[in-house]
Amino acid sequence: MPPADPVREPARQRDLRERNLATVLARVAASSTDDGTAPSRAAIAAATGMARGTVSALVDALLLGGLVEELPPPPRTGAGRPANGLRLSGRRVAALGVELGASHVVACVRDLTGAVRARASVDSVDRTGPPERVLGASAELAVGVLADARAQGLDVVGGAWALPGLVDSAAGRLRLAPNLGWRDVDVLALLSAHPGLEGLPLAVDNEAALAAVAELWHPGDSPGGESFVLVTGEVGIGAGVVLDGRPLRGERGWSGELGHVTVDPAGPPCGCGARGCLEAYAGQEALLRRAGLAAERAGADALRRAALAGEALPLAALEQAGRALGVALAGAVNLLDVDAVVLGGACAPLAPWLAGPVRAELAERVLRARLLGVPVRVSATGSDAAVMGAAALVLQRVLDAPAALVA
Amino acid sequence: MPPADPVREPARQRDLRERNLATVLARVAASSTDDGTAPSRAAIAAATGMARGTVSALVDALLLGGLVEELPPPPRTGAGRPANGLRLSGRRVAALGVELGASHVVACVRDLTGAVRARASVDSVDRTGPPERVLGASAELAVGVLADARAQGLDVVGGAWALPGLVDSAAGRLRLAPNLGWRDVDVLALLSAHPGLEGLPLAVDNEAALAAVAELWHPGDSPGGESFVLVTGEVGIGAGVVLDGRPLRGERGWSGELGHVTVDPAGPPCGCGARGCLEAYAGQEALLRRAGLAAERAGADALRRAALAGEALPLAALEQAGRALGVALAGAVNLLDVDAVVLGGACAPLAPWLAGPVRAELAERVLRARLLGVPVRVSATGSDAAVMGAAALVLQRVLDAPAALVA
Repeated sequence: MPPADPVREPARQRDLRERNLATVLARVAASSTDDGTAPSRAAIAAATGMARGTVSALVDALLLGGLVEELPPPPRTGAGRPANGLRLSGRRVAALGVELGASHVVACVRDLTGAVRARASVDSVDRTGPPERVLGASAELAVGVLADARAQGLDVVGGAWALPGLVDSAAGRLRLAPNLGWRDVDVLALLSAHPGLEGLPLAVDNEAALAAVAELWHPGDSPGGESFVLVTGEVGIGAGVVLDGRPLRGERGWSGELGHVTVDPAGPPCGCGARGCLEAYAGQEALLRRAGLAAERAGADALRRAALAGEALPLAALEQAGRALGVALAGAVNLLDVDAVVLGGACAPLAPWLAGPVRAELAERVLRARLLGVPVRVSATGSDAAVMGAAALVLQRVLDAPAALVA
Repeated sequence: MPPADPVREPARQRDLRERNLATVLARVAASSTDDGTAPSRAAIAAATGMARGTVSALVDALLLGGLVEELPPPPRTGAGRPANGLRLSGRRVAALGVELGASHVVACVRDLTGAVRARASVDSVDRTGPPERVLGASAELAVGVLADARAQGLDVVGGAWALPGLVDSAAGRLRLAPNLGWRDVDVLALLSAHPGLEGLPLAVDNEAALAAVAELWHPGDSPGGESFVLVTGEVGIGAGVVLDGRPLRGERGWSGELGHVTVDPAGPPCGCGARGCLEAYAGQEALLRRAGLAAERAGADALRRAALAGEALPLAALEQAGRALGVALAGAVNLLDVDAVVLGGACAPLAPWLAGPVRAELAERVLRARLLGVPVRVSATGSDAAVMGAAALVLQRVLDAPAALVA
């Protein structure tokens, strides 16, 4: 017997308008991304096959809602009125993103064009403190950037928090975060009750998944159809998986736990309780210890400096970490059939030493590498990937369903 | 900048009817699966929110097209005419499935209710022969079951071939199959030119992906929202991944290469050229060799008999294979966040010995196992999984887009 399809719902006239609003908005967004041109109503009608009148009415609604704006008409060059180009507007809609990083908290507000309009960070957050205090500090930071954004006339329509570990987005809870020592924290309830955040729609999600969203949103990446595994993380290691231009979330949003993929079943113990996990080779703590830098309580910067100076132990540790990363990533490519591997998070600045061993392992261990190579590239997003992705998540929802924001 | 969404197209009136036809058909199919009841037009209208008249017109079109049928009305029990129940019809639409197995070829025709209406198999196909001969033998078999199905009045609307290795479905080619020794074979061209298959729409796909489709289609599985990794294969090892009730294909349909996930980077050599792949522990050849049964050219049956007899070497080989399978599957669950692991293919009859070690490794190595266990179950589909899935693939396309088959 065929399985039921509980998702399929009948299409109705209202759905039609909502879908068409999103279609027109997506065309405007795509043109901005693709080639910097601003499409006219006529160009959108031609590209979508919709009637001119329909497109015009939808564009008027989006203009009124402040989601798109009209460029001044170009100079007349012949007969007829020149068409006004359309682009996304950065004047009204904006979104808040917040990240609980390894040693810092960052908050930013991005407008609908993706531009960062406000940003603040705190460097010295003690992540080992009680969740209430750590989350409270992040909420304080958020309230600050919200005030900054509102002073610019922006309407912040929602916010998202990037968290490490197993995040239950539907319930708003952080279920398990070994590197924070947190277990089942009701993050959304704590944040929503914070003075200054009441009433703002909030979401929580995994930092690696959000970094992948940021990677997708970054200008210069070819939109649509893209697929990759993005390695992220600072202390731990996570991965954001993108297939066919869309984040792969898994059944509960707990996909991408690359840091706990086994590299060698008899390998060194990992903080999670198992042996031979990737984090036990390439996580920050293991890497610094193998590099002989643990005693100095140094960070990734110290490791990079030592590698640049050609020190033997750090170079050997990076070689081994790159091999382990390559083994785990080869498994991911074999299972997921993504096009490429992207080194982000703490791996990005270490890519000069990691990428070689990663490429070697991929070439040996990915079945399809016999036909088609697996490109390894360095993330285009900086260390702010997760916080940028958090805001992008909220903005993407606006683009997917703009009807709620227009009359 | 937000990425473009090339998939989004404007909705039109014709789309509306096509979607609504599919919605009604899905309701009929779901009810058949869920509880054996046959919904009336009124029940479908109530469940979907569509108008009674709209539903009636759509049902009439589906009845005329032979996709659904009306049950005789139940006896009158009160005032008013009792409603006729609707169910999928097995009288018209059917689909062909063919599988190139390890040592045999199977072909079957299933009707729209999923019932097998014709089946044939050849046991002694030499898979190491030239592709033309092996594919020709499978085409002969297909022509036979097609004739059988057509004699029953069935309209076979298409067929699908289940192949091992990296299959390029869009191009109809088998790109790489280490266990067959084939490389870049234009399967679709060879099959389409075979006498008796001309004009029949054909597709090719990976056997593990199709086995997952069969697992989804099997009665008794709860429909919708299900997610699992299904281990398949006879000689080699593949996996079909299902997330949220839908097969995960990957960028080229090359996902699920579980057999080449690394278990131990320094492990034994694999046929693919790498070391320590899962197949080097749990593939049929490795398993039989470690069990001391390779010399007898025995199959999985011999291994099962030896294990039942309590022979030490076979039991140790199965224990080690189960451990290796568990390590690779733990990586898959960490990366994909599926609900469950399903042992199918050659692993199904060996599950009494494999499932224990698999469970132990999953419990140790899956991060989310600290919160939520990973159930291991044995596939409900038999050794015909891939061929059943091949036919189901074609039938699912009819259910997804029935408009082409109705006036």
